[in-house]
Amino acid sequence: MKVIVNPSGETITEVLKRPKLEAVQLSETIQTVFREVELNGDQALLKFTEQFDGVKLDDMKVTEAEISQAEMVLSESLKSAIRVAARNIELFHAAQQEEVKVIETTPGVTCWRKAVPVQSVGLYIPGGTAPLFSTVLMLGIPAKIAACPVRILCTPPAKDGSIHPAILFAASVAGITEIYKVGGSQAIAAMSLGTESIPKVDKLFGPGNQYVTAAKQYTQQLGVAIDLPAGPSEVLVAADDSIPAAFIAADLLAQAEHGADSQVVLLTDSEVFVSTIQLELIKQLAQLPRSGIAEKALENSVAIVVDSSNWAAIINQYVPEHLILMGKYEQEVVAQVVNAGSVFLGEFTAESFGDYASGTNHTLPTAGYARAYSGVSLDSFVKKITYQRVSEIGLNNLGNTVIELAKAEELTAHAYAIEVRLNAQNTNIQTS
Amino acid sequence: MKVIVNPSGETITEVLKRPKLEAVQLSETIQTVFREVELNGDQALLKFTEQFDGVKLDDMKVTEAEISQAEMVLSESLKSAIRVAARNIELFHAAQQEEVKVIETTPGVTCWRKAVPVQSVGLYIPGGTAPLFSTVLMLGIPAKIAACPVRILCTPPAKDGSIHPAILFAASVAGITEIYKVGGSQAIAAMSLGTESIPKVDKLFGPGNQYVTAAKQYTQQLGVAIDLPAGPSEVLVAADDSIPAAFIAADLLAQAEHGADSQVVLLTDSEVFVSTIQLELIKQLAQLPRSGIAEKALENSVAIVVDSSNWAAIINQYVPEHLILMGKYEQEVVAQVVNAGSVFLGEFTAESFGDYASGTNHTLPTAGYARAYSGVSLDSFVKKITYQRVSEIGLNNLGNTVIELAKAEELTAHAYAIEVRLNAQNTNIQTS
Repeated sequence: MKVIVNPSGETITEVLKRPKLEAVQLSETIQTVFREVELNGDQALLKFTEQFDGVKLDDMKVTEAEISQAEMVLSESLKSAIRVAARNIELFHAAQQEEVKVIETTPGVTCWRKAVPVQSVGLYIPGGTAPLFSTVLMLGIPAKIAACPVRILCTPPAKDGSIHPAILFAASVAGITEIYKVGGSQAIAAMSLGTESIPKVDKLFGPGNQYVTAAKQYTQQLGVAIDLPAGPSEVLVAADDSIPAAFIAADLLAQAEHGADSQVVLLTDSEVFVSTIQLELIKQLAQLPRSGIAEKALENSVAIVVDSSNWAAIINQYVPEHLILMGKYEQEVVAQVVNAGSVFLGEFTAESFGDYASGTNHTLPTAGYARAYSGVSLDSFVKKITYQRVSEIGLNNLGNTVIELAKAEELTAHAYAIEVRLNAQNTNIQTS
Repeated sequence: MKVIVNPSGETITEVLKRPKLEAVQLSETIQTVFREVELNGDQALLKFTEQFDGVKLDDMKVTEAEISQAEMVLSESLKSAIRVAARNIELFHAAQQEEVKVIETTPGVTCWRKAVPVQSVGLYIPGGTAPLFSTVLMLGIPAKIAACPVRILCTPPAKDGSIHPAILFAASVAGITEIYKVGGSQAIAAMSLGTESIPKVDKLFGPGNQYVTAAKQYTQQLGVAIDLPAGPSEVLVAADDSIPAAFIAADLLAQAEHGADSQVVLLTDSEVFVSTIQLELIKQLAQLPRSGIAEKALENSVAIVVDSSNWAAIINQYVPEHLILMGKYEQEVVAQVVNAGSVFLGEFTAESFGDYASGTNHTLPTAGYARAYSGVSLDSFVKKITYQRVSEIGLNNLGNTVIELAKAEELTAHAYAIEVRLNAQNTNIQTS
């Protein structure tokens, strides 16, 4: 961890710079995959699965028997933890539902907005040894609350053709029963284009490797929406020395273990305290199975020692995905924070709570996108359609205003669409 | 207008196909503009303005004097109409503000979500003879309600270096006072990169020609967010013959006058009624100053005659930006509509109301994007940050659940961030 004490504005800008993301230059590979899937459908998917996942499948769809078996093999304690997490995620996201408010902006002119589910959503869950079942909950539960009629999940099979039981159980808890054994860019192509067995979706969600990311970028050109632009995960921890160094070190390492490209920033006001945290890092690192990855991430990370009056400005400049604020400056700083994905307040609020089970969503904007983007929420699974009704009274009250405005924009037919209605009314009055 | 009676599913799919948008292949031109603006800042902007808008400016910023003068030259009736529209837009969008709801998902674990303004937004308003002041209101008013601290507007100057007074007046009504005389892709580059006089923004809004559209696409790669993907405007009118043909013809023409590429679809259940509407179209077209444009748009448009029981399915398949539903099937059809940008209900509700003054936003998803995207709203000018706080009680209630889940995902450091806190607590208990 680089340590920088009382840096100038320029130095701060320099050290907070994220490594430039390689513009994903895989478009040819991706286009080939999309072309093959468009042309050969399921056959292409089965071929790619054999090639990349090393398993020859007859059928990609996970059966009901596989889902019930998953429930049998999982430990009761894990199932119970998944159910608790699911309940909290459901509580927090259900509270995001909005009532329809009808607004009469002018007498006789009523306008409203209604959340309507995206009709078809596809969730992608990567493979690998560690099953990302938490992401299944984070995406599947809001999709269920939104009542998206079609909700499917794609995830690559293991070499024996199986899917990790925790993935299947979490999907089932989230109410997803249409699960397909297909991964990588071919899964994104399948959900974007549709095949004989996999439906075409309107919006795609979920993390993935560079091929999946590139495929999600590409699919937007085909009119399929995606959840968020992707980037490596990040945390900024801001704390003074009233907080145990062990807590801070643990939070930094929890971020660092995600990958060598994880972004970790520490903000504090005491150089001595940084040394204490460094010692804790070394101590805790030694216990970590993923210490290699975490060590690399820490090498690229930075501790900034600066007066707490500067913390909020630095946070807002860096725009962290996760912000952990602990200690005596917490209230003062959080009041000034305007750029962050999700904020964790107080010494007991480890980021891990939000990653798994407190109820907030863990799919959040990285790479500075939190300047303008929100994390995944119920909103991500609906679109808000506006409606309006103008009565005869409304026509009389607002019609001439619209005519005046339309004519000033030289849109004569827009004005006439009102005039023809006003005229018809006058004719009715004259003939009655 | 092509007329198609009781078409098959395949024919419907065929006729509802939008013309493929030319993938904007202007990226080299755009990149050159961005490079020049990055390198030479204001000088580059002034050079481009001289080159493309034919006017040599000393200063791009609109002065206070110009803004007050605009108010003096505009007619009272137009100013009053703009004020009425602004008030309705404000009423509708202010009602979109959300209260912060704190949810205790587990005793001791509280989560909430707060709308925080995007800190810096840039609005682009195209030039041309007809001043698009209505778009100034549609973007500027929600930005004001959201309280985005930096709100700027760029629009190209006329050959005499002036901006249309209606644009300046609308901006002033919307609380925007930072207005710059610069247009085209160079304006998008300026707001994306920042120059000596124009601030860099976090999110860009507004319509434009193909260069502006391409520049908005390109700027996303730089991490600047945009309002919506762009496409030509569209309407689908669904009505039976209980509605005057003149109303329907006027609504179709109001869409058609936008441009030769406007999409116009009529859905009705009587061939005879289509003929009546066709006659009305001819009659009304003759009165239109923009009849050339409207005629071209109508040539590409289609009337589908089919039983009303099929209307909702066709609407949901086409996904219109604007949907006008009139007549005796209105209620039955609207209940089944799930894909549309904005819906206009009843015979008096001309789309023009929503385009200008009813209060709903007129910046809406085109080209089928309404499957997954909403139109511009207050949400477009904020991001929703999630917050959480876990107390000692919360730690005890939920800590072990998180540890169980983190370990099952093989994220040991995530588990340890909880364990270290639980352990510290136990130590405290033992020592107290």
